[in-house]
Amino acid sequence: MSTEKSFANGSAAPGPVPEGCIRLYSMRFCPFAHRTRLVLSAKGIKHDTININLKDKPDWFLEKNPLGLVPTLETTAGEVIYESPITCDYLDEVYPQNKLLPSSPYAKAQQKMMLEHFSKITPYFYKIPMGRRNGEDVSGLTAELKEKFAKLNEDLVNKKTKFFGGDSITMIDYMMWPWFDRLEMFELKHCLDSTPELKKWAERMSEDPAVKATTHSVDTYKAFTKTYINGKPDYDYGL
Amino acid sequence: MSTEKSFANGSAAPGPVPEGCIRLYSMRFCPFAHRTRLVLSAKGIKHDTININLKDKPDWFLEKNPLGLVPTLETTAGEVIYESPITCDYLDEVYPQNKLLPSSPYAKAQQKMMLEHFSKITPYFYKIPMGRRNGEDVSGLTAELKEKFAKLNEDLVNKKTKFFGGDSITMIDYMMWPWFDRLEMFELKHCLDSTPELKKWAERMSEDPAVKATTHSVDTYKAFTKTYINGKPDYDYGL
Repeated sequence: MSTEKSFANGSAAPGPVPEGCIRLYSMRFCPFAHRTRLVLSAKGIKHDTININLKDKPDWFLEKNPLGLVPTLETTAGEVIYESPITCDYLDEVYPQNKLLPSSPYAKAQQKMMLEHFSKITPYFYKIPMGRRNGEDVSGLTAELKEKFAKLNEDLVNKKTKFFGGDSITMIDYMMWPWFDRLEMFELKHCLDSTPELKKWAERMSEDPAVKATTHSVDTYKAFTKTYINGKPDYDYGL
Repeated sequence: MSTEKSFANGSAAPGPVPEGCIRLYSMRFCPFAHRTRLVLSAKGIKHDTININLKDKPDWFLEKNPLGLVPTLETTAGEVIYESPITCDYLDEVYPQNKLLPSSPYAKAQQKMMLEHFSKITPYFYKIPMGRRNGEDVSGLTAELKEKFAKLNEDLVNKKTKFFGGDSITMIDYMMWPWFDRLEMFELKHCLDSTPELKKWAERMSEDPAVKATTHSVDTYKAFTKTYINGKPDYDYGL
């Protein structure tokens, strides 16, 4: 497990990306990097992972990606790809096994529109815990989040499918999953109580091998969040 | 020209999308809808255009797209697609002539990363005119915009290509163009003075037939902006 420890500034740069392999620069608890980890796992793509200390980024990492973002992919040819949906689409195009994006242009556009909607939901998972920490009343924000969940629930009801892109998992499910994987950590699990189809979706998702392979225990998630909210994230918690 | 007039609430809904045609819901001066208009024109796609009064949207439009956004595409099958990059990618996939996105997954990812960067530039074209109107000092914002232009210039210098995706126009050029088409309207043309490669790119772009077919005169742009900044946009200006 020691190779999972995060690289901080001053650390020696990792060697070149091994032949036949793709590299993911990640952070173990980052929900955006989690998207890419899910896709790598679901497609069985041979890769190595370099975890980055996001509070103290190595210079050699900033040289590869001046924005310093995770997830970042690096190929053996030195190509660098970042922004989570872009990394996932790239992987799905380059590695043909277990296609996650639909081939129909309209079905693909629908997934992209859903992702755009979902990008307006993710900020709640930051604002609610931060509001609580600051002793603010977060009931309004929580009600808004429940409203957004109700829309997702309605979407599943209308589609009559097990997942958001059909009866098997597709890209859009993995794009949304990281925030649902953390619901208990955010103390927001109760938000699913009035959205039974969405709750069933989450239960089905939690049985998926890629989901199982990329998660952490609730205790680990909670312990990391505590360090994060206090401004001193322990990226290596539990290692 | 009368068919270009915008549809407001209370107006009769347009008929169904004609066979062999795709419909664009647009607004003549919207830079986001301009992206889709450029792609429709560059690819020679048969389409009709319904302009929407964005301050008083028709109910029948909100039924098609509850977000009420332009650009929105509608197919003869009643499929509805919105968000400008999603509409453009959809058109490029469905209509194979004159492909605008590269086929290589990495080149495509590069265009998506550039687009992500560029999405941090577009807010300046709103903030600077609004700041001026409110009598604020916009020199800081203008300097920031020049800095962003310098990065785009550097990108062209490094690539040694005429356009951002090579020596011919590709999708990324059309995604960025609408804001450059409006530089004079925004009174920001001087921002190109210290970025000669970007200026040359803009000059080359302005010769493109699709660019020529979708632009307005500087006077028309300026007159519309005046109505827009005063809170009473005249969507039909010049018709």
